[in-house]
Amino acid sequence: MTQVSEAKKGNLTKEMRAVAEQEGVEEEFVLKRVAEGRIVIPVNRQRQGVQVCGIGAGLRTKVNANIGTSQDEACLEDERRKMQAATEAGADTLMDLSTSGNLREIRRTILAETHLPLGTVPIYQAAVEAAKNKKSIVEMKEEDIFKAIEQQAEEGVDFITLHCGITLETLARLKKEGRVADVVSRGGAFLIAWMIHNGKENPLYKNYDRVLSIAGKYDVTLSLGDGMRPGSIADATDRAQIQELIFLGELAKEARSANVQVIIEGPGHIPLNEVETNVLLEKKICQGAPFYVLGPLVTDVALGYDHIVAAIGGAVAAAAGADFLCYVTPSEHLRLPDVEDVKEGVIATRIAAHAADIAKGIKGARDWDLKISRKRKLREWNEQIALALHPERAKKYRRESNPKTSDVCTMCGEYCALKVVDEFFKT
Amino acid sequence: MTQVSEAKKGNLTKEMRAVAEQEGVEEEFVLKRVAEGRIVIPVNRQRQGVQVCGIGAGLRTKVNANIGTSQDEACLEDERRKMQAATEAGADTLMDLSTSGNLREIRRTILAETHLPLGTVPIYQAAVEAAKNKKSIVEMKEEDIFKAIEQQAEEGVDFITLHCGITLETLARLKKEGRVADVVSRGGAFLIAWMIHNGKENPLYKNYDRVLSIAGKYDVTLSLGDGMRPGSIADATDRAQIQELIFLGELAKEARSANVQVIIEGPGHIPLNEVETNVLLEKKICQGAPFYVLGPLVTDVALGYDHIVAAIGGAVAAAAGADFLCYVTPSEHLRLPDVEDVKEGVIATRIAAHAADIAKGIKGARDWDLKISRKRKLREWNEQIALALHPERAKKYRRESNPKTSDVCTMCGEYCALKVVDEFFKT
Repeated sequence: MTQVSEAKKGNLTKEMRAVAEQEGVEEEFVLKRVAEGRIVIPVNRQRQGVQVCGIGAGLRTKVNANIGTSQDEACLEDERRKMQAATEAGADTLMDLSTSGNLREIRRTILAETHLPLGTVPIYQAAVEAAKNKKSIVEMKEEDIFKAIEQQAEEGVDFITLHCGITLETLARLKKEGRVADVVSRGGAFLIAWMIHNGKENPLYKNYDRVLSIAGKYDVTLSLGDGMRPGSIADATDRAQIQELIFLGELAKEARSANVQVIIEGPGHIPLNEVETNVLLEKKICQGAPFYVLGPLVTDVALGYDHIVAAIGGAVAAAAGADFLCYVTPSEHLRLPDVEDVKEGVIATRIAAHAADIAKGIKGARDWDLKISRKRKLREWNEQIALALHPERAKKYRRESNPKTSDVCTMCGEYCALKVVDEFFKT
Repeated sequence: MTQVSEAKKGNLTKEMRAVAEQEGVEEEFVLKRVAEGRIVIPVNRQRQGVQVCGIGAGLRTKVNANIGTSQDEACLEDERRKMQAATEAGADTLMDLSTSGNLREIRRTILAETHLPLGTVPIYQAAVEAAKNKKSIVEMKEEDIFKAIEQQAEEGVDFITLHCGITLETLARLKKEGRVADVVSRGGAFLIAWMIHNGKENPLYKNYDRVLSIAGKYDVTLSLGDGMRPGSIADATDRAQIQELIFLGELAKEARSANVQVIIEGPGHIPLNEVETNVLLEKKICQGAPFYVLGPLVTDVALGYDHIVAAIGGAVAAAAGADFLCYVTPSEHLRLPDVEDVKEGVIATRIAAHAADIAKGIKGARDWDLKISRKRKLREWNEQIALALHPERAKKYRRESNPKTSDVCTMCGEYCALKVVDEFFKT
């Protein structure tokens, strides 16, 4: 039993009902789109107490925050703090991308303590264990990869990234492309190294049936990874990227036939004028499967400010139809994000998501802006700030910069346009 | 003699030559577009040592930073610091929007100390003096407004915002519109209050010939203000706003006939899906006059983060053809920006401008991204960071988060995708 199998039979699950209620849309609408594969609800059947989150066309754009350890920083308490920061800032989902420390303990702790749907990239575990026990990631066995997938699915992970579209064919396209930045997907890099070293096809592609069987068993949502996502504006929308997308489209179709929920991961570094094209391509080639984008980053030059770069790309992508934005933090390309980076990343991405929801007419989106505008017009400061997307900084600014007259702010003082016009416009 | 009069005669000025050289475009191209009014070069004939800055179609998108005092915070030293912060962060122009303290001293100090083109809003001075000397802004005389314009032009201000398009007709449209946030333009509010109180037409519209005569005398660039810019997503692209734009289009045409350089100011709070329309409308109605936008802000709800909101709107606007972005700082709607806000505002807006320049194919824009991508691919950290749009934060992050292996970062450590693929992809 999966959300898709139930939807195809016309059975409304409690998760579909919850999504309809949260979003203020008809239950039939959710049911139809889950059946079509245009909406997913990532909830592992093993998972308890998860906050249901619908992702797809016609629903509010969702925001994911990546947390997780690395070789240089592997502390469970830090991950707990990042999890809390992401949650408080309003993330809709989390991904644990840990590659160091006790991976299983970290993942189980997060699963136990978060109410948000949790995603992982199981190949990290397989690769990290191979590096530790066999001295190289390329020594991992096909069985190790599937063992990691099965284990994580059994533990209750709600969605998993699998780079199933990196085939020998895709690699041939990549070699002929001659990219500036080759490959920047970590999971993609592991698989490519393995494929080249062992001279074999990607096990996740070759044994995709097995992937589907595990996903179906636990109703884990497949997030088909984009190993070919461009890591430079110069590599955007190239043959390697689109070749992989074509495979992902075929694999998405198979997943639906197998009643498995599936979303497609997307770029990456993409110039602003190609963002809409990328969304339309995904929607066409993958028959409307929810699109989960990282960024897109619309320039390569803003190191330390990539959360802003991604907010630009993410807003435009989501307005064009992308459904799920993976956050990018100010530390992208520089270091593992800390707690503050996590917070700023979630806020910037939520801004992008909401700007897009206004643009694409998502139910209720404009109402929020209208509410806050009315309070602003009345110069009701506390009410205005309380309604803000993340009031903390606004509160601080207001507290620190108190105007002589309390119904204005220190920007204009008594020359506040709203106040001046109010006075004379009433006549 | 103005840039336009010279261009019309086919005379290449040294400013046009400098613009061509800076931008890597043909001198003839600049000359032709200045003659057509599609490029302006705001340099007051009285001004010495200004860094020439071309604004318009085919040139790099420029960024303006507003500084200036308010009733609550009027300290010349603070303004100096903000001027330095904006300059160091890479602003192309400054505007002094002071409304408190010794306005003339502040303006003259900035003019003397900055090499950037400086803009002002002369009606602020007229209104503030009326409020001080005559107890109300509505008591200012028409002559006071023109005196302020003449004085500031004579002092060497390079461009001035004048809200010439707020006519009695525009006000009639505004009243019938029934807006959520009425008027949020400060200069606009002063004029509207004056017009309603005195029952008279806008002197800047009625005596536009006089405006043109002063502007022509000093070659001050007119920045025709948008008093009707929406202050809420709900008011965007409404009849009041477009009515004013129509008047601005007529006034721009007159300015060109009088050989006066002119740009058009634009919104404001605009949903993402209306941004491109607003740019196209301005370009049509004002016959290609450079478009100077404030934001646009694509949502009303992100108090404390409006620099990100404006970066989204600004990138999309500039990609669609807007030429000049007025920065928005994190303190917008909350307080007068401090030095840190100024810096963050300029950086966010420069990101938007550059993302747009890549998208609209501005010469050299992509080269920068390519350069930094190549350094990133090689994992040459210092070179990569030195090339960044604003390296300060990147340097700090790198310094604080040193990886065990120096050729990667703490995000992935030895599992760096670029490094893993490098090793196996060479074969």
